[in-house]
Amino acid sequence: MEKPKEKENKQIRGEEKKITFNVSKENNFSNWYSEILEKAEITDIRYGVKGFVVIRPWGAMAIENMYRIYEQALQDTNHQPTVFPAVIPEANFKKEEGHVEGFTPQVFWLQDIGEEKLALRPTSETAFYQMYNLWIRSWRDLPLKLYQRANVFRYETKATRPLIRAREFHWIEAHDAFATKKEAEEQVQEDIQTTEKIMHQVFGVPFLPMKRPQWDKFPGAEYTIGSDTIMPDGKIIQQPSTHLLGQHFSKAFDIKFANKDEKEELVWQTCYGPAISRILASVISMHGDDSGLVLPFAISPKQVVIVPIFNEKNEKKVMKAAEEIKESLKDFRVQLDNSNKRPGEKFFFWEMKGVPLRIEFGEKEIDAKELTIFIRDKKEKIKTKLNSIEKEVAKLGKDFDKRLLEKADKMFSNIVVSCKTKEDIKNALDNKKIARFSFCSIESDGQKCAEFIEKELQAGVRGIRADKKEKPEGKCPFCNKPAKEVVYAGKSY
Amino acid sequence: MEKPKEKENKQIRGEEKKITFNVSKENNFSNWYSEILEKAEITDIRYGVKGFVVIRPWGAMAIENMYRIYEQALQDTNHQPTVFPAVIPEANFKKEEGHVEGFTPQVFWLQDIGEEKLALRPTSETAFYQMYNLWIRSWRDLPLKLYQRANVFRYETKATRPLIRAREFHWIEAHDAFATKKEAEEQVQEDIQTTEKIMHQVFGVPFLPMKRPQWDKFPGAEYTIGSDTIMPDGKIIQQPSTHLLGQHFSKAFDIKFANKDEKEELVWQTCYGPAISRILASVISMHGDDSGLVLPFAISPKQVVIVPIFNEKNEKKVMKAAEEIKESLKDFRVQLDNSNKRPGEKFFFWEMKGVPLRIEFGEKEIDAKELTIFIRDKKEKIKTKLNSIEKEVAKLGKDFDKRLLEKADKMFSNIVVSCKTKEDIKNALDNKKIARFSFCSIESDGQKCAEFIEKELQAGVRGIRADKKEKPEGKCPFCNKPAKEVVYAGKSY
Repeated sequence: MEKPKEKENKQIRGEEKKITFNVSKENNFSNWYSEILEKAEITDIRYGVKGFVVIRPWGAMAIENMYRIYEQALQDTNHQPTVFPAVIPEANFKKEEGHVEGFTPQVFWLQDIGEEKLALRPTSETAFYQMYNLWIRSWRDLPLKLYQRANVFRYETKATRPLIRAREFHWIEAHDAFATKKEAEEQVQEDIQTTEKIMHQVFGVPFLPMKRPQWDKFPGAEYTIGSDTIMPDGKIIQQPSTHLLGQHFSKAFDIKFANKDEKEELVWQTCYGPAISRILASVISMHGDDSGLVLPFAISPKQVVIVPIFNEKNEKKVMKAAEEIKESLKDFRVQLDNSNKRPGEKFFFWEMKGVPLRIEFGEKEIDAKELTIFIRDKKEKIKTKLNSIEKEVAKLGKDFDKRLLEKADKMFSNIVVSCKTKEDIKNALDNKKIARFSFCSIESDGQKCAEFIEKELQAGVRGIRADKKEKPEGKCPFCNKPAKEVVYAGKSY
Repeated sequence: MEKPKEKENKQIRGEEKKITFNVSKENNFSNWYSEILEKAEITDIRYGVKGFVVIRPWGAMAIENMYRIYEQALQDTNHQPTVFPAVIPEANFKKEEGHVEGFTPQVFWLQDIGEEKLALRPTSETAFYQMYNLWIRSWRDLPLKLYQRANVFRYETKATRPLIRAREFHWIEAHDAFATKKEAEEQVQEDIQTTEKIMHQVFGVPFLPMKRPQWDKFPGAEYTIGSDTIMPDGKIIQQPSTHLLGQHFSKAFDIKFANKDEKEELVWQTCYGPAISRILASVISMHGDDSGLVLPFAISPKQVVIVPIFNEKNEKKVMKAAEEIKESLKDFRVQLDNSNKRPGEKFFFWEMKGVPLRIEFGEKEIDAKELTIFIRDKKEKIKTKLNSIEKEVAKLGKDFDKRLLEKADKMFSNIVVSCKTKEDIKNALDNKKIARFSFCSIESDGQKCAEFIEKELQAGVRGIRADKKEKPEGKCPFCNKPAKEVVYAGKSY
């Protein structure tokens, strides 16, 4: 008999026939999520430190692909990469009053080494901006648009969840400085467009750009626009946020430039932070199904898996054809599965891994010069001519991502429910929806109503739409004051 | 009059005509190195924390290119990427006796948060191997070859130098596990080959693979092979090192596998660590000259800069041609410099930045369909037909890197001097050479002689060649015992 340890491991590697993945995403999303992260080898939660997980090769490769796409988009909008230290001196960290107040409880500090006290960066405003003080002198130095890919650290006291809420996460942070407020506000809009162009259009994760209430903005910002998307359990998750920092930090760090009249002015600043590891959580949750992952063609570590079906007699011939097919697809990320597993096991395994396309064939298909392609999301098989395989894969890949996007958009379009009364709002939230309603104000005087909603309905007021102006009607259902805004509220992680 | 601040800044950006870079690499390498890092905007040392520097866009882009090339080489030898936490629990860290002893003085610890004490990783053996304990069950799981790109932290007490010796550096660490010692030893050889294939052949940095003396091996290893290269001031710098860990860590972390007979055995391990930020230091130092950087075509952030020369009358026509040339070179990393600077300033600036090829032309050249290409290392101009520019750039790029490699090899081939007596050795070291001589032993009984060399000659015994067997002659010049090995010694950072 097989040892339990050996058996379990075979399962993890998908070598065991009876590897199971039969958790219902619809009925129990939480279990489904944990199970798929483990079975598809995205993360391993057994590292033993709260909030820190190991990202395994399948997850690491997806994240690397996502980084490259996102970084390219930033470079296309004139950002340049940098690498900043992971530690920030306490004195820097404390320069912007609102910032230090908001972030201090979340900071990991290094143990004293007899030098200045150092924070492990929870975000890098106070690292970048002391250098902006040195680098920016004249209007000719503006705009300055820099970013870095980095690991950041936050001392999270709430329950952590792999990729969703962690103590170390992997993100990009862009820090831009301008001569005028107008340019800075345009940058905020460009950031929203970048989220739209990449997270939505390429990764297939739709979102609502929400201008956050004053009490919920980034510490040190004038205002914050968060990208709210939703998990299958109806919970909102914040994705990239962009902040108009205004002149808060330029005042604190004395970042001045000489304008064209040789007069000194403070710069206007923005920052933008897509957390790649967290976006992966949304990608997994949005597209996956009860057979496992469904990864967009654009980011899947392998876009195509080739599964040749052979016996002892025709192995050589079939494997030769498999190698030739792989070679003809060299512009794609292709896995040739020539392991000893049975075809059925291979099918199961690669479906669970979310590989968009599977090419399968045996001797008969080679002779007929016609292959079968299995399409992961639709679970359909189509036939295709051997000599047009390259074109076909390119087309199927495009169609694949378009379909994921459409499906996600359709789901998302039903998620917002317009409400008038408290009861409407409660019902919408109970039905895992986002409630939309007229509200007193997202300025400070609305905070009490928001706190009431938080307490009574366990939901947060996420803010107002940043992409369009919406007209409120009547009164706030909580305080009965005239409504000044249309807000959205939902449950969140 | 221009303000000093404004003037300095223009200089930094190369907008000032009289930007100076006139430090002699040969006469004062140390100043040359500091100056080029600043002027070419590779790093900024004004971050204010000892051993932590900011890597600016030009440096960050070079490092990113180097990472991609190196990671591809590791994937080509069947390594897979992972992302491990940056923190390591104290209990893990202390599991391997030699390791903890060697690394503890260098560790940054996090301030107590009422949970387990955490180290900021100085290297990740003790992070990876607790997971290898979970992931490796059977011979089918072997070999396991994983790597990560990561920032690592060491509490360096000696003087730090940007990219060379830092408290945070950016590296790749590969951690491999095998069923047999033979395979592990083959992996060590494969690692040396990867260093040869990438650092030497692609980046143009020659090295000697040295098996380190027992007293100088990696803490926790059976033996260490370091890649020693040299700086223009004759000082040795260690580049990627590879370690046969043997079963030291598999014992400490209980990493066992069931062999084909279902019997449990400990795995055999190796690790390999190319520090990309440090290799950039060697690339800069090896190839640069008194006009600034000379970056290999393979890694330069921009491979080609296009400098159109125009006046008010023909600006439109010349700029149109420049855009067309840029478009025809879209397979390369191209910068079109259409700034308002004068051509001479642009030439100076891009030469200092080390861009391999500069294409320059005005209206006359466009009409004649013939352009000038300036080649950075040779400082020569050649003429080339407009319609063959793409082919020409590809060829010139290849030739460029071949020439850098040959020049570096030539320099390096003269660096080792064979010595017989103490005086020979002293002379060689005084002449900035590596001394090669017969020596008692790199096993523990040679440590006293090595300490004597360290103290009297300020040089280190780097070990014996790992790529070939060399026969010692006569006696050790320090203890007069029969020589067992041929060692190499040199001064180092």
